[in-house]
Amino acid sequence: MVNVAVLGYGTVGSGVVEVIGKNKDMVNKKSGQELNVKYILDLRDFPGDPYADKVVHDFEQIVNDDEVAIICETMGGVGAAYRFTKAALERGKSVCTSNKELVAKHGPELLQIAHANNCNYLFEASVGGGIPIIRPLNYSLTAERIEAITGILNGTTNYILTKMEREGADFADVLKEAQEKGYAERNPEADVEGHDACRKIAILSSLMMGMNVDSEKIYTEGITRVSADDFVYARAAGKTIKLLAKSTALGEDQVMAMVAPFMLDRDNPLAMVNDVFNAVLVTGNMLGDSMYYGRGAGKLPTASAVVSDVVDCARHLGKIIMCFWEEKDAGIADISEQESRYFVRVKASAREAAEAAFAGCETLDVPGREADFALFTKPVKEKDFAAKCEALGSDVESRIRLY
Amino acid sequence: MVNVAVLGYGTVGSGVVEVIGKNKDMVNKKSGQELNVKYILDLRDFPGDPYADKVVHDFEQIVNDDEVAIICETMGGVGAAYRFTKAALERGKSVCTSNKELVAKHGPELLQIAHANNCNYLFEASVGGGIPIIRPLNYSLTAERIEAITGILNGTTNYILTKMEREGADFADVLKEAQEKGYAERNPEADVEGHDACRKIAILSSLMMGMNVDSEKIYTEGITRVSADDFVYARAAGKTIKLLAKSTALGEDQVMAMVAPFMLDRDNPLAMVNDVFNAVLVTGNMLGDSMYYGRGAGKLPTASAVVSDVVDCARHLGKIIMCFWEEKDAGIADISEQESRYFVRVKASAREAAEAAFAGCETLDVPGREADFALFTKPVKEKDFAAKCEALGSDVESRIRLY
Repeated sequence: MVNVAVLGYGTVGSGVVEVIGKNKDMVNKKSGQELNVKYILDLRDFPGDPYADKVVHDFEQIVNDDEVAIICETMGGVGAAYRFTKAALERGKSVCTSNKELVAKHGPELLQIAHANNCNYLFEASVGGGIPIIRPLNYSLTAERIEAITGILNGTTNYILTKMEREGADFADVLKEAQEKGYAERNPEADVEGHDACRKIAILSSLMMGMNVDSEKIYTEGITRVSADDFVYARAAGKTIKLLAKSTALGEDQVMAMVAPFMLDRDNPLAMVNDVFNAVLVTGNMLGDSMYYGRGAGKLPTASAVVSDVVDCARHLGKIIMCFWEEKDAGIADISEQESRYFVRVKASAREAAEAAFAGCETLDVPGREADFALFTKPVKEKDFAAKCEALGSDVESRIRLY
Repeated sequence: MVNVAVLGYGTVGSGVVEVIGKNKDMVNKKSGQELNVKYILDLRDFPGDPYADKVVHDFEQIVNDDEVAIICETMGGVGAAYRFTKAALERGKSVCTSNKELVAKHGPELLQIAHANNCNYLFEASVGGGIPIIRPLNYSLTAERIEAITGILNGTTNYILTKMEREGADFADVLKEAQEKGYAERNPEADVEGHDACRKIAILSSLMMGMNVDSEKIYTEGITRVSADDFVYARAAGKTIKLLAKSTALGEDQVMAMVAPFMLDRDNPLAMVNDVFNAVLVTGNMLGDSMYYGRGAGKLPTASAVVSDVVDCARHLGKIIMCFWEEKDAGIADISEQESRYFVRVKASAREAAEAAFAGCETLDVPGREADFALFTKPVKEKDFAAKCEALGSDVESRIRLY
């Protein structure tokens, strides 16, 4: 029997307990032994809950119990979660987490502590919720040199963009509705400004490079400026708009990474990822593109990923599970020197100036629209593009990169 | 250093040698040691080939060499490949294979021999080419009760159906073109009649159930009867047609499995899997749907999967890698008792009889077509459907299940 403790009895934590209970036969079979939830750490009490007797309020009780071999950290945040994780790993207890913020910020340090203490720090649930992506990157694509990773990594923004596309609605209206339905937080900034996706692509990029990619250095742009008018042109061009988190290896120790809305062709596999679904497209030098698709959030999908890590830890007690993520920082390429192609929506009155500024661009007019038109630029350096837009001033109504 | 032998220097075998050579740094890092191709077994010689000096003609030389720890079986077939695999495993040498026919036929026996001899029999490349699917099923979805697996598992037929859809062409013409381009074999039966997809879904179903699903008992129907006219109606209904391999767990030890063309909605994630790409949609009881997408065939993608197995074996020398696939046969449900919904294309002259036979069906007329119409049935038992079609005789021009 392996004893497990769950830190935080919120959405994901209660899901972990539920998955271990409901799929007991399967989980025990795959673990090669019985998993037992011995403690649940939470500040609250849960009278009437079937697991109420497992609830404790003091982490020391858990970390000092030699019977506890595996800890699920489903608290979130980088304060107590960091201290508890570190203390557990130092005591040789493996930790499985859904906490992307902590993994992005302290991943390599915690991995190193784990390996120094002959235990494991696993984080399948930190990216893409229930989609198996960390394990495929670490154990399946081992014969590949991974060249690029592109993901739809945030369910809230993907839900909003899907609604905007289908209903022709504007961002603010769809956000409000998503908040009412509980698909978006009351304070939606982490999602709609791209910070959540940024942390996730930092984790994936770090695994791609085998070294640390600092999330705070990744260029990040949210979806708040995407409008119903942009979707009108996207549709006319056979495209759609998605918030993509994109990372490309530039040699051994440098990476080009960004989070931004992109316009992409309808026949791109990422274009069919709708609603709250997530997907990760991985480009390897032998395999080409492969894609991993599923529910990127939600109680049970996320908990399922945490429990798959628990099973892995149970099978590898006292053994280190391979994960290459050095503390050394990878270089992050200056985005202003990168080339992109852009969709630009421009006031009709500035047509001549815009076409001159973006020589060689393709233009698109949508029947019935008099006030504006769109152009698709040739590849242009980000900084040159910015300068041209500045010169055109408020005549540029919007701009979105092409994938 | 770990010594590897490759059996069969054909497309996949030469790809394996190429991947180990080209991605040497990555492969050795992930293996935790250096991989060395010591032997290549082939009946032919390869003068001038950079690996010509590794080529041997006698399997005994390989199996008797105690230095060889891992063998890649990329010969195909169930004769010599079976004998060689068995002999290697009995000597404690792990075997990695791309041979789906052998895995489908003798998988559980060979796994048992491997585990009895403290080595491994891995077959990531046998399904979905380079798409990681065996490993995710075995190691990632360990917290799930897998309820169903649906795949587009054959690149040739998917290429043909994609061309038929895009060009409005008929099966025979597209097949001929695919053969000329090398996308279809001169003898295309194994692909177009569904046998290849059948072996692959048998393997996936066995892993889903943890027991043996006999490929020869799976109902299998190919794509030879799908016509350009069917695609006209599919398009009008917002659907497309794919060859799906489908398996659903019915309780602990019974499965409903079939390979057949299906009509599916355009917004189903499987609908966007085009050309030679493959995909596997897995439904778990906690995670819901997740999908794995990529190149289902080709030299380097398939070789990449074989080499990922070699890396796994190298990291687990002397240790058994979990794989639950008992020799006990799972029951296979009688398909004639199952319910399906059907698309039926019927001669216009038989409209009244057809609508009476399929009471409650929806009908679809395509402007400009006078000779036929289509109907979509309510769920109906397969055997009842067959009886109704027989009664309508040649007035039924085609029938395709709805997904």
